[in-house]
Amino acid sequence: MEAELLVIGNEVLAGFTINTNAAFLGQELLKLGYLIGRQTVVPDEETALREGMRDAMGRSSLVIATGGLGPTRDDITRKVAAALFDSDFHFDADVAADLEKRFGTKIPSLVDQATVPKKAHIMKNSVGTAPGFIFRDATSTLILLPGVPIEMEAIFHQGVIPYLKKHLPPSGQHERKIVRMFKLLEVEIDPFVRQVQDQNPDVQFGIYPGHGIISVHLVASSQKALKRPYEALVAHFSDYLYNSPSGKLEEAVHLLFNEKKLTLSTAESCTGGSIAAALTQLSGASKYFLGGVIAYSNDVKMNVLGVSKQTLENHGAISQPVVEQMVQGILNITGSDYGLAVSGIAGPEGGTPEKPIGTVWCAIGQQGAQPKSWKIRAFGNRGVIITTTVNNVIGELLRAAQKREK
Amino acid sequence: MEAELLVIGNEVLAGFTINTNAAFLGQELLKLGYLIGRQTVVPDEETALREGMRDAMGRSSLVIATGGLGPTRDDITRKVAAALFDSDFHFDADVAADLEKRFGTKIPSLVDQATVPKKAHIMKNSVGTAPGFIFRDATSTLILLPGVPIEMEAIFHQGVIPYLKKHLPPSGQHERKIVRMFKLLEVEIDPFVRQVQDQNPDVQFGIYPGHGIISVHLVASSQKALKRPYEALVAHFSDYLYNSPSGKLEEAVHLLFNEKKLTLSTAESCTGGSIAAALTQLSGASKYFLGGVIAYSNDVKMNVLGVSKQTLENHGAISQPVVEQMVQGILNITGSDYGLAVSGIAGPEGGTPEKPIGTVWCAIGQQGAQPKSWKIRAFGNRGVIITTTVNNVIGELLRAAQKREK
Repeated sequence: MEAELLVIGNEVLAGFTINTNAAFLGQELLKLGYLIGRQTVVPDEETALREGMRDAMGRSSLVIATGGLGPTRDDITRKVAAALFDSDFHFDADVAADLEKRFGTKIPSLVDQATVPKKAHIMKNSVGTAPGFIFRDATSTLILLPGVPIEMEAIFHQGVIPYLKKHLPPSGQHERKIVRMFKLLEVEIDPFVRQVQDQNPDVQFGIYPGHGIISVHLVASSQKALKRPYEALVAHFSDYLYNSPSGKLEEAVHLLFNEKKLTLSTAESCTGGSIAAALTQLSGASKYFLGGVIAYSNDVKMNVLGVSKQTLENHGAISQPVVEQMVQGILNITGSDYGLAVSGIAGPEGGTPEKPIGTVWCAIGQQGAQPKSWKIRAFGNRGVIITTTVNNVIGELLRAAQKREK
Repeated sequence: MEAELLVIGNEVLAGFTINTNAAFLGQELLKLGYLIGRQTVVPDEETALREGMRDAMGRSSLVIATGGLGPTRDDITRKVAAALFDSDFHFDADVAADLEKRFGTKIPSLVDQATVPKKAHIMKNSVGTAPGFIFRDATSTLILLPGVPIEMEAIFHQGVIPYLKKHLPPSGQHERKIVRMFKLLEVEIDPFVRQVQDQNPDVQFGIYPGHGIISVHLVASSQKALKRPYEALVAHFSDYLYNSPSGKLEEAVHLLFNEKKLTLSTAESCTGGSIAAALTQLSGASKYFLGGVIAYSNDVKMNVLGVSKQTLENHGAISQPVVEQMVQGILNITGSDYGLAVSGIAGPEGGTPEKPIGTVWCAIGQQGAQPKSWKIRAFGNRGVIITTTVNNVIGELLRAAQKREK
């Protein structure tokens, strides 16, 4: 079945809010077996919203709308949807009781939030104040969810999934396999992907580049059709593969270090904590990640990590001997099995002809072994250079730890 | 003038790519004076793409499309656009020469990328291989940009902005003022915002909550109409205001610390480097940010920050005395004027009845003064708890440093 997303909000159109809800819903619906045919973002404005809903329901039998259910004045979604389904409003004592139980009687929006369309199926919001709604007629199902991500996600899991499974099971079958790689660029994988594509015309191929990671998605009507092209890609790019249910490269390290019972620590200069922040976004990181030092100033490099003043003066902070001393320092401090260190220029200021912006020295250390170090040159703005560096060192760490024998 | 965005890509529909391009374009077009009336995301599929382009051009005189210009097979955007504008293709020697100069003669996509629609205005891509295109007829302008963010942004700045200023200057005038606050929740500001709204019916109000930050946007046809409601909000919420061109709370700290020539360091446990990572995303952070310690394990808390074993045993890692010792430790190590420390449970595992998930102890330290510490309870998933904590401590730091006399 084709589903469609309708995102409501001036803040998304104006770019003040990044549309993460659409990404969440796309992934979740895909897992359930629905294909998203279109996403539309419309303003918090009655006519545009009504047209957006009507057009979407004209094209697709399942429409999920987010946003505009809050207690504030610009939240008009349920009013517009109720009018389309010709529904009056009434005060729902159940919704009111649930809100009172969780927020007390004094929330200013209680009466507003508990006054709901008669014809809608109500889904309680276990996190915030705005319930979700499902409207249904002979041809269309329209689901309204709040725009605040954690509220939308909670209602989706608790209310929408059970409803869809019961009332709107997906029809068509779409199988997908994903080949995830680090380090390679689109131009490096494209020629081989084209070859495989030519040999497998019944499979759809998509290449999705990140910064320092890239994935190839294969979609077909059966797992059988995916087998040959998937295996061809995996064999060809075997040196760069990583496995991660979320798609995040750091999750591959997380899984491997937990499995092998290894420990890790970090010494970061130009990435400013982003390597550690990426690793610790994953639940259970404390099982293998011991900690790190953000050595932004040379004083911290010397006083905490033990980098020698002489080395800093002779080679500069962005140099091979400095990252090697940084990684040795963090291994000494934490006693972890592996250590990572980076020092570079994320820009946009500070580049020189010898060390242009994007130059980063990286090192992997291991207890009782010589550190391994290398230089990269990342391109892009400051954020992109940081992300590319994070993915580069995490990819090399994954490779090193995979090869480890015990 | 109303503009519209058309984003092309299965990866966006499927949620594998978050639609940051739309956010970038929304903000940039708004700055130039265009209002975005709609965003649509369509799949890499000929019929859907043609319909998406046709519908958008039917509604809006300016359509900006991103994606599907790369060298791979699923990139069909320019073919579809050329057909709509009835344009043949030809080999463009200028584009080919530019690609050769930057990438050598061996890139496999050279001939493809240099074969361009005859009727299109070509915009060179200074970062990647896919040029941008502008098609124009009596009623519509269709601009095609690549989907890779840094390439899209480069062409937008170098090609699109000059073109729009010359050929399609915006007509209507939309003035906007933004009141940015930390710590407050939507339910806490909504009653007062409604009052101000009632007194200023000619102004549009929008409330945009983040995690630990919130903003109110005021839009009207003149700055004069915005003055009174803006001043009313600023006066009422004066304790929670922050100033930041980007909207990021950490930018307010960045500006203040640079202005006052103060220095900062961090000692993070549950945020795992995210406070430092947020601060160091901004160019020039090294002028005030000295570094930090990510004390994920108790050993790092003791050995690097000097937290006492006794205190950890008696009070647990998530406690007032521990964050106070952490902040004192980082002040001692770096000698910075201010220090921040946090220790808490980001979940989803590890909560107890006394210290449920989302419990975080925070501290601000200042050389020669007693640390100030407080406990928060953040709600949401792991990422939301981390972000809420980051914004909470940065907000309190901003407040403390603003009050500092010298």
